[in-house]
Amino acid sequence: MVMSTPSVSAANQSLLGNGSGVVSPSPIPPGGSATTASVNSASEMEHTVSMTLFFVLAVLGLCILVIHLLIKLKLTYLPESIAVVFVGALIGLLLQLIGNWRKEEAFPPMIFFLVILPPIIFESGYNLHKGNFFHNIGSILLFAILGTVISAAVIGAGVYLVGVAGITYQLTLVESFAFGSLISAVDPVATLAIFQAMKVDPILYMLVFGESILNDAVSIVLMTTVIQVKPEDGGLHALGLAVLNFFKTFLCSAGIGTVFALASALLLKWVDLRKTPSLEVGIMLIFSYAPYCLAEGLHMSGIMAILFAGIVMSHYTHRNLSPVSQITVQHTFRTMAFLAETLVFAYLGLAIFSFSHLLQPSLVIWCIALCLLGRAFNIFPLSFCLNYFRQHKITLKNQLIMWFSGLRGAIAFALAIHLDVRGETRQILVTTTLVIVLFTILVLGGSTMPLMKCLERRPAWMQTYYYYNNPAAGSSRSRRRRRRAREKQEVTLSKTQMGAAMDSEQYSEFAESEVELSGGGPGVPVGPGGHKLQGFIRLDLRYLMPFFTRTFTHKEVTEGRQMMTTLTDKWCQEVRSTPAGEGGDPDDKEDDEDIDEEASHAETSLTAAQQ
Amino acid sequence: MVMSTPSVSAANQSLLGNGSGVVSPSPIPPGGSATTASVNSASEMEHTVSMTLFFVLAVLGLCILVIHLLIKLKLTYLPESIAVVFVGALIGLLLQLIGNWRKEEAFPPMIFFLVILPPIIFESGYNLHKGNFFHNIGSILLFAILGTVISAAVIGAGVYLVGVAGITYQLTLVESFAFGSLISAVDPVATLAIFQAMKVDPILYMLVFGESILNDAVSIVLMTTVIQVKPEDGGLHALGLAVLNFFKTFLCSAGIGTVFALASALLLKWVDLRKTPSLEVGIMLIFSYAPYCLAEGLHMSGIMAILFAGIVMSHYTHRNLSPVSQITVQHTFRTMAFLAETLVFAYLGLAIFSFSHLLQPSLVIWCIALCLLGRAFNIFPLSFCLNYFRQHKITLKNQLIMWFSGLRGAIAFALAIHLDVRGETRQILVTTTLVIVLFTILVLGGSTMPLMKCLERRPAWMQTYYYYNNPAAGSSRSRRRRRRAREKQEVTLSKTQMGAAMDSEQYSEFAESEVELSGGGPGVPVGPGGHKLQGFIRLDLRYLMPFFTRTFTHKEVTEGRQMMTTLTDKWCQEVRSTPAGEGGDPDDKEDDEDIDEEASHAETSLTAAQQ
Repeated sequence: MVMSTPSVSAANQSLLGNGSGVVSPSPIPPGGSATTASVNSASEMEHTVSMTLFFVLAVLGLCILVIHLLIKLKLTYLPESIAVVFVGALIGLLLQLIGNWRKEEAFPPMIFFLVILPPIIFESGYNLHKGNFFHNIGSILLFAILGTVISAAVIGAGVYLVGVAGITYQLTLVESFAFGSLISAVDPVATLAIFQAMKVDPILYMLVFGESILNDAVSIVLMTTVIQVKPEDGGLHALGLAVLNFFKTFLCSAGIGTVFALASALLLKWVDLRKTPSLEVGIMLIFSYAPYCLAEGLHMSGIMAILFAGIVMSHYTHRNLSPVSQITVQHTFRTMAFLAETLVFAYLGLAIFSFSHLLQPSLVIWCIALCLLGRAFNIFPLSFCLNYFRQHKITLKNQLIMWFSGLRGAIAFALAIHLDVRGETRQILVTTTLVIVLFTILVLGGSTMPLMKCLERRPAWMQTYYYYNNPAAGSSRSRRRRRRAREKQEVTLSKTQMGAAMDSEQYSEFAESEVELSGGGPGVPVGPGGHKLQGFIRLDLRYLMPFFTRTFTHKEVTEGRQMMTTLTDKWCQEVRSTPAGEGGDPDDKEDDEDIDEEASHAETSLTAAQQ
Repeated sequence: MVMSTPSVSAANQSLLGNGSGVVSPSPIPPGGSATTASVNSASEMEHTVSMTLFFVLAVLGLCILVIHLLIKLKLTYLPESIAVVFVGALIGLLLQLIGNWRKEEAFPPMIFFLVILPPIIFESGYNLHKGNFFHNIGSILLFAILGTVISAAVIGAGVYLVGVAGITYQLTLVESFAFGSLISAVDPVATLAIFQAMKVDPILYMLVFGESILNDAVSIVLMTTVIQVKPEDGGLHALGLAVLNFFKTFLCSAGIGTVFALASALLLKWVDLRKTPSLEVGIMLIFSYAPYCLAEGLHMSGIMAILFAGIVMSHYTHRNLSPVSQITVQHTFRTMAFLAETLVFAYLGLAIFSFSHLLQPSLVIWCIALCLLGRAFNIFPLSFCLNYFRQHKITLKNQLIMWFSGLRGAIAFALAIHLDVRGETRQILVTTTLVIVLFTILVLGGSTMPLMKCLERRPAWMQTYYYYNNPAAGSSRSRRRRRRAREKQEVTLSKTQMGAAMDSEQYSEFAESEVELSGGGPGVPVGPGGHKLQGFIRLDLRYLMPFFTRTFTHKEVTEGRQMMTTLTDKWCQEVRSTPAGEGGDPDDKEDDEDIDEEASHAETSLTAAQQ
């Protein structure tokens, strides 16, 4: 109902109107009201921007409700991104029909890069503390960096060649490779969903999770590097410069992020802000965003910096927080990332009807084929190489899933919009990207369920092999818990639900093994399987972890628990509740027992951790 | 060390450079690096803005550390705002000495009004759920609306008259009253601090807390209204229009905020988002910011809308949240408000050395006198009137404190910067406001301690009178607890610490009485003192509260508790802790006992609440 008022339409125009968009002080036609003639144009502009923001918030609210509906109706095999794109498309269509819609583009790029992108990337990194990322850093980096470069090269070369051959629309060399880079950014959501649903072993899960997260940043840096290449420098020289530039940007940016994260860990280790959560959370927010700003300001990659800041902060800084701040920080970051991502997908939906598209069907078809080919050249050869070094092999079946799960998402589309190339080509590339994103989300995403069903029956020997190599994963307790989780939990492609689920089950499993590790005494740390740990993990456990995280005294732990108990009690006091027994389900009692069991188990682990 | 690099200085220039500031696409001199000639100007601008943001974050981080130092060194009688202003001034001086600093003004106004102001105001409103705001709504509104108007009128008329009399710099009528309005915005911080430290009775505390919070919004609306008056309309007509406009804006904006808040309450009552905290927190963020955007977009007062949204959301919506979301929302809002306020104070400090000031000493002195006079005309007559109707009188001594505690703060300064008047006058008004703010914070704020000490010895008859009228406050348990709190807690003017303290002690006291109320059964609700409740409170308890908040089933309460237990256990598992007994203080055991006692008490209240 809101969409039909003229002032909202005006706001939309300003949202989608001018390239430099919302933030330019260029004269904007006055809004609906005529009583404000005396107000100057800066103030008028503020009103328009406010209305735009209101429209954005309304769309976001609608998307949240739709996502909730999906979860409620257990339509969880439909990825949320599809639903959000659909909502966006519907709104776009509606506005189109009303007619008060200017066919033009784009988020103000500055808002996108300074406001929307950072939380998405930071949260990806911050979520990594949910697993043994560092155990697999080598393989992950190989997939993320080399894999993405391979994919970009294959797609870029392919697009350029079919163009030169006259089969499709012709792109220049730089444009081809820039497009190849941006379209190589794989969306972590789908990958995550599939692997969670498949109950593959956690190591492989982490491998692909890590890859798909780092991959975005690599893809962005790659595209920026390619765009800056000046063809007149000559082939090899330009290539050399690009490679040099790529590694310089990559390393410096990652360094900035890491330094900030370590500084925040030390700061929160030595400066006790635990009594004043607003200061603590404030420091976390500042240190998470500062590396992005500094890196961007120094012409490095903010994305890379904030990604590494996220990874390192979740590994060290997160452990120095009070429980209240942990919860606040975790959920704030997750909510911000969720809103940002929803916004991009909704915008993608809006774009279907609002952009002036230039569709080149042959180019689109070739690109889809090249995307699949590029990802194949990424996954299969690299897995083959890695299997020589990995104790824990990547099976052909898992490789198939990894290949199939290369959905393209928000990042690719956003990069396409901001690609800095000449007019017509840009329109063509945006349209092509939009179609590829929609195709992969709808077709690949939609057919993951059948594929999973088909591959679900894992041969018995694999199961045995897996537990043989991972005795900890096979311990009777964790096996029982996993089975229980499998019974409880249905297959879901809902990222939101997944986040919540990961907090409890998936995560505590990893945390448990970490506790075991750190409880290993002053000797050589041993891994979950009793293996000697090597390389970074050992360094980390022996020197880095003690240096960057603080040791809580018994009193402090008690205070932390007490703080949480107080808050819980406050909540219980505040909510109006029915008397015990009334309104409860018949299975109430059973649930309570379950909970008691869980709680007593947690109590036990705590005691273990304290000893 | 960061401040001395040339690119940071460039960033500062853009922060303080042009009026429309950071967001204008006007050409900006390139930053330090020369390698970026190929990058276009939009991208260059992004780098500059990033650097500006980094500078802002660095200043914020520094301020947080200074505030922490204050708390740590128990310098809590020094208000934090003074410390932050001092830090800002120091940085300003440093940049001045380095020389690379352009003497000009202002935050981009749009950033201030769309990003900085809303969290401050919303959080003020949201914090009101910590007390019986609605019990005193009449008195609060009288002080906030009529009181502020009186103060603005006295100061406006005074400034105009001394100008006309040729004693000081002459302002026009509109300018005088606009200035009178903006300088009537009283900072809640100091008031809060004094009243908390004085241990005055909670009702009076709430009265003044409510007043000083609403007052900001009234002051802003008033100033906007005055500025829009066209003197050529003729005296009475213009006055009539202004009054009409003021009430129209006031009521419509408050209405927008209230409607949104109630909608959010109903939404979260009927749509169960408790399993997916990121959706829940997302909805809260959207519904808190949307009324601001809509009201601004419709040329109403966003401040008023977001303030009422905050008040109503904390009263109803907050109770429909899961415990995790409650914590997240509470602390996120508080942190955002804290950061925003710190930023404004730091900027105020920077302004001392960076603005081109035009000091009119006679005007400043007259204004300070008029401010004191205006507040006197606000507090004393209104208290006198109110005492006719109030059961619970406002004593002369408390009136004195209320009068004395009228510190001016961030809002007044921010309004002065954005006052839309001609050049020289504006500079004079900004300087005048800056001096008044600094004077009230330093002199009045600094002398609150002596005044408090002087007034602390409350005559015995008053004590008796107070407890006679408030049997609940005088119940042996709450008296014992308050005494214990007084012994534990030192006098503090630190807002940060206060927020944390309010969570536990102050708040649970109020919550307790609320539980008693809602547990009062289907009969006529009775107040803390056994009095029959009247008017809005009764309506609220009987009809509104049940309609807008949900009744949790026993199972849901258990699930909520379980969620919190899981998170607490997760934290305990994650932190590295020393074995019990080691590293603890000698008073560890004592503390533990204290905690146990608290916990068991909380447990008891929970049981009471559930029955």
